[in-house]
Amino acid sequence: MYSACMSTPERLIEATRELLWERGYVGTSPKAVQQAAGVGQGSMYHHFAGKPDLALAAIRRTAEELGAAAEAALGGEGTAYARIEAYLLRERDVLRGCPVGRLTMDPEVIADPALRAPVDEVLGRLRARLAEVVQEGLDSGELSGPLDAAEVAATILATVQGGYVLARATGTRDPFDHAVRGLLTLLAPAAATA
Amino acid sequence: MYSACMSTPERLIEATRELLWERGYVGTSPKAVQQAAGVGQGSMYHHFAGKPDLALAAIRRTAEELGAAAEAALGGEGTAYARIEAYLLRERDVLRGCPVGRLTMDPEVIADPALRAPVDEVLGRLRARLAEVVQEGLDSGELSGPLDAAEVAATILATVQGGYVLARATGTRDPFDHAVRGLLTLLAPAAATA
Repeated sequence: MYSACMSTPERLIEATRELLWERGYVGTSPKAVQQAAGVGQGSMYHHFAGKPDLALAAIRRTAEELGAAAEAALGGEGTAYARIEAYLLRERDVLRGCPVGRLTMDPEVIADPALRAPVDEVLGRLRARLAEVVQEGLDSGELSGPLDAAEVAATILATVQGGYVLARATGTRDPFDHAVRGLLTLLAPAAATA
Repeated sequence: MYSACMSTPERLIEATRELLWERGYVGTSPKAVQQAAGVGQGSMYHHFAGKPDLALAAIRRTAEELGAAAEAALGGEGTAYARIEAYLLRERDVLRGCPVGRLTMDPEVIADPALRAPVDEVLGRLRARLAEVVQEGLDSGELSGPLDAAEVAATILATVQGGYVLARATGTRDPFDHAVRGLLTLLAPAAATA
């Protein structure tokens, strides 16, 4: 499944990321990881102490990529509204859902402080970053109204995470796109009064 | 775990609902259902053909309850905004997440048209009901602005579903409450101009 140029730990991490995204932590067995990575059991335990250790490496990398993808939109050029719009409309594999958000439905991830930490950290950082952009828009007068930046940031991130849930229920991306467009029109009137 | 007054099928359905909510479909074994319900294997297979059959009965009942709880808020007295507010602020066990929404992260539920149907149906019905209330608000002039009722309905439902994701990541209900308050302030300016 993975290129021969990748090292064994790399192949294990990439296979784990795919399986966690598709099946979650509870649904991912060490055996399935070994098969997907084309790595034997002995070799896997040589590089990683066990499933939690391997999952932690995989979750950390996925969280890092999510943070970088969000920052590419939020740290770009343009007004606060334009950057929030770029974040909301960025290319996504909507029907696969969020590889980080889906882990919050995994009881074993949520119950393990080490596994939950990178999930909590990246979603918290994303909310803080969105709040900064909303606050910039409020300070410059581009966004108006009695908005609390931290609250609106949570609404933006929740709309994305919940949009995945609604899309997966229908089997089409339409509800995700509807939710995002609805949020943009709710944010727009404030922008238009500036 | 369940009252002796409940029939065997009832105990099996209730145990399955709890396990699906906590651990999802992939993480719920027939054995765990039997243990939680205090029912033997033979008895379980006497009443239900297997895990999918039992899960379908459990999911249908959970979906029915979710629909009824939403309707209690949305079909109540008051303005469109007040009913949307009542829906958003209704009592929820936020850290447990949504028993229906969480199933969308289950690859085996999404891949099985029979299991996905009640999930899709209740979330679709909820979006349609929210769109009706938003449209009432637009028609009466209570809500204003260039809002698309179906889009705003998707935003409302996505905020709730995503709010659960954010809350579970942090281990506190705060991000859910933030997301909901943020959405209410975004909806309010339109209401205030009426």
